[in-house]
Amino acid sequence: MAIAKKEAGTPQSVAVVGAGPVGALAALYMAQLGWRVSLYEARSDIRKEQVYHGRSINLALSTRGILALRGTKLNLDEEVLREAIPMRGRMIHDQHGRQSSQAYGVHGEASRWTYINSVDRGKLNCRLLDAAEKHPNIKLKFGHKVVHCQPDLGALVVETGTDDARETFTISHDFIIGADGAFSTIRRALMRCTRMDYQQAYIPHCYRELTIQARVDAEGNRSFAMDPYHLHIWPKMSYMMIALPNTDQSFTCTLFMPQEKFDAIRSQQQLVEFFQQEFPDAYELIGRESLCEEYFRNPLGSLISIKCKPYHYQDKMVIIGDAAHSMVPFYGQGMNAGMEDVMILQEMLLRYQNSLSDALDAYTALRHDDAVAICDLAMYNYVEMRAHVHSPVYRARKAIEGVLYRLMPSYVVPLYTMVSFTTIRYSEATRRSQRQGRWIYIASGVALAVTLGLAFAATTISLSHHHRRHRQQAPTSAA
Amino acid sequence: MAIAKKEAGTPQSVAVVGAGPVGALAALYMAQLGWRVSLYEARSDIRKEQVYHGRSINLALSTRGILALRGTKLNLDEEVLREAIPMRGRMIHDQHGRQSSQAYGVHGEASRWTYINSVDRGKLNCRLLDAAEKHPNIKLKFGHKVVHCQPDLGALVVETGTDDARETFTISHDFIIGADGAFSTIRRALMRCTRMDYQQAYIPHCYRELTIQARVDAEGNRSFAMDPYHLHIWPKMSYMMIALPNTDQSFTCTLFMPQEKFDAIRSQQQLVEFFQQEFPDAYELIGRESLCEEYFRNPLGSLISIKCKPYHYQDKMVIIGDAAHSMVPFYGQGMNAGMEDVMILQEMLLRYQNSLSDALDAYTALRHDDAVAICDLAMYNYVEMRAHVHSPVYRARKAIEGVLYRLMPSYVVPLYTMVSFTTIRYSEATRRSQRQGRWIYIASGVALAVTLGLAFAATTISLSHHHRRHRQQAPTSAA
Repeated sequence: MAIAKKEAGTPQSVAVVGAGPVGALAALYMAQLGWRVSLYEARSDIRKEQVYHGRSINLALSTRGILALRGTKLNLDEEVLREAIPMRGRMIHDQHGRQSSQAYGVHGEASRWTYINSVDRGKLNCRLLDAAEKHPNIKLKFGHKVVHCQPDLGALVVETGTDDARETFTISHDFIIGADGAFSTIRRALMRCTRMDYQQAYIPHCYRELTIQARVDAEGNRSFAMDPYHLHIWPKMSYMMIALPNTDQSFTCTLFMPQEKFDAIRSQQQLVEFFQQEFPDAYELIGRESLCEEYFRNPLGSLISIKCKPYHYQDKMVIIGDAAHSMVPFYGQGMNAGMEDVMILQEMLLRYQNSLSDALDAYTALRHDDAVAICDLAMYNYVEMRAHVHSPVYRARKAIEGVLYRLMPSYVVPLYTMVSFTTIRYSEATRRSQRQGRWIYIASGVALAVTLGLAFAATTISLSHHHRRHRQQAPTSAA
Repeated sequence: MAIAKKEAGTPQSVAVVGAGPVGALAALYMAQLGWRVSLYEARSDIRKEQVYHGRSINLALSTRGILALRGTKLNLDEEVLREAIPMRGRMIHDQHGRQSSQAYGVHGEASRWTYINSVDRGKLNCRLLDAAEKHPNIKLKFGHKVVHCQPDLGALVVETGTDDARETFTISHDFIIGADGAFSTIRRALMRCTRMDYQQAYIPHCYRELTIQARVDAEGNRSFAMDPYHLHIWPKMSYMMIALPNTDQSFTCTLFMPQEKFDAIRSQQQLVEFFQQEFPDAYELIGRESLCEEYFRNPLGSLISIKCKPYHYQDKMVIIGDAAHSMVPFYGQGMNAGMEDVMILQEMLLRYQNSLSDALDAYTALRHDDAVAICDLAMYNYVEMRAHVHSPVYRARKAIEGVLYRLMPSYVVPLYTMVSFTTIRYSEATRRSQRQGRWIYIASGVALAVTLGLAFAATTISLSHHHRRHRQQAPTSAA
């Protein structure tokens, strides 16, 4: 495979900053393109850490992420999906604990491409790091914190060691890929050397994680306390809770509420009353003791949305994943979009083999619209998930779209399907959905007009019939 | 005058970071409220520097800025206006050098409140620093660069000295005011301790300054080369040039163009041809030699727009002026808005005397909408100044508004008047203008309908008259 900018057989060196799922995947792709890769991670190797109990952050892996894993040709997609739990739809819980299922796919059959997959972020990360470690072109550098970056020199200032014995050194690479998350150091450096458009916004909602433990029967057999093949939602208009299944038969619940609402719950008494009132079924499953312990122990997380442009500087550096586009978690696309970034970056490197700078220009130009589109969709879903799922108009549109998709699948594809189960560009998905929405409204208008027309005709006929009868009768009565 | 948080007679200490016009004014206001003020400025004392030749950055001082100066009760407004040149309107230059004047005010008479004032930023700054130096509560600290800030401790990390002998120390204050401009260090610290919404955008246009020198006659008398009582504009749709008068009878021109357009002009030949073609009158006045020298010597400036929220952290710090809201320069309100910030901050400190934290909460709540409104208006004017000034629809609306303002001045006030010549809140000015716009369109619609109705009636009458005559004639002709 040809390598962008590789000259005279000497492989170029690239630093990938951040060894989360997106950074680790980028390291693999770059190594396969022939680059010498150094993968820097501030934290220690998560594979050697104790698994934290009672908490597992899970993610919804869908088509874009799966295809990006598959692109490594290392069977990573199969490995990861073996440890994943498919979620075929949303399970909506109402005030009284009643549940109703809304399928994600619209086809009757369930294929890998019509469900999303609950995966453990940690496990996924470990699989990727294992693969990276095996690759001869990749050097893993844990406990290496990049504190500063000089883009023109391709230089990273790296801090290692513990607080007692901290060491700082500077190291140069031909190219730097920043996959260092929402509070990216590489993005900060990029901001200084480009005229960057940048936008960050916190939403009023924060989140806190809780756990529904597995059921254990008398013989010690574990089972799920709710249907595991759904993403569970308790929509409450101004706040909501969701739950995703884990492979140990537990569920991780995430409660999203405005910070003041969290702050207002100060005592166990208040907490229990709130849950008994609002989430009676979840309260039973979580249990009073566990609820009180986790609620007051687990940290409160903030939710930020970040958009920026450009993503690169000359042929020196590029940012991908959350470093380039952080989104609120309500479309389940954050990691999928980050992994798709890696595929698209590879595509551009292969398309512009003679100029890394052209490849990166093309990357920013192509990817920015899509990143903005998915950030906006995620923000829109922030409202949809806690409010619209109950609305009859919303459900009617979903139903009509579902029917139309089945009738003419190449013309009408529901937005959720385009985003989660295809690789249609996010920006194109948004545009198509808007067009479809207009047609659905027009079609509804026509349907309404025809219905009213028929009703009117029927009434007229019946009236004129009545009138005729009346007229026929009139002479009689006059007579 | 009472002081927020001042207890038991001990004046609290406040650090004002940045000794530009807004920072110096804030120091004066805080000192007058009884605070002990340290005014930190990274650069040396501008009053002791050589005046740079051939360049003077001038600003348009209008009502909000004048009132903020007057609020010091130190006669600063009179002093500054004595060195200012009133600009009563825009002078539009067309392709052929023809000029047409558009007054800012709509009344016939010129009062201080119906013109904007061209002032030298440096001189204004000096007047404010002179006043600050005289105040016993203010300590000026030039050459003190604040490099870091720990809000919870009220601590500033300050760097002094030259490159040879640099010294760094930490100093604490009860309260910190950041007036350190668009690339504010204090804002960066605020961003770390609050959940800040932040937005920055560069516009494609950059700018470069040029000079039209004073005319000097045979006896050595200096005079202005153009009408000095106007802001001169050469609107070119996709780019433009403006010129403001200086007290030395010169004009400072600012050329605004997309960066690529600047980059495309590489030789003196290209530059001269471009000016001869596009700005023939300005070309004559600047002169070939001076044009070529300044164009290739003067730096290219970028234009950034910044909005953020909140402006404060607890009772520890607040940001004002460009640090809180940088705007593109097309409404001439940047410094005026910054100075108005100081007045409003004082108002809040006096209103919530017992709680600095409440005062700052109220400040952010009140000021944010207005800052966003003026940033948006400035961006809108970026289009208006280079494109709309020529448009007949734009001029018609201006004319209608002018007439209505004269007829019912308490109902219809042109937007430019509200922004530049009143202290109506920026956000309120925007809303009122939108309302007025709707009414003007409705009124135009009514006028149009009445006109058409009359025309129709006239035609009908004339037709029926014709018809009657025709009918009267018909028998005759048939006869």
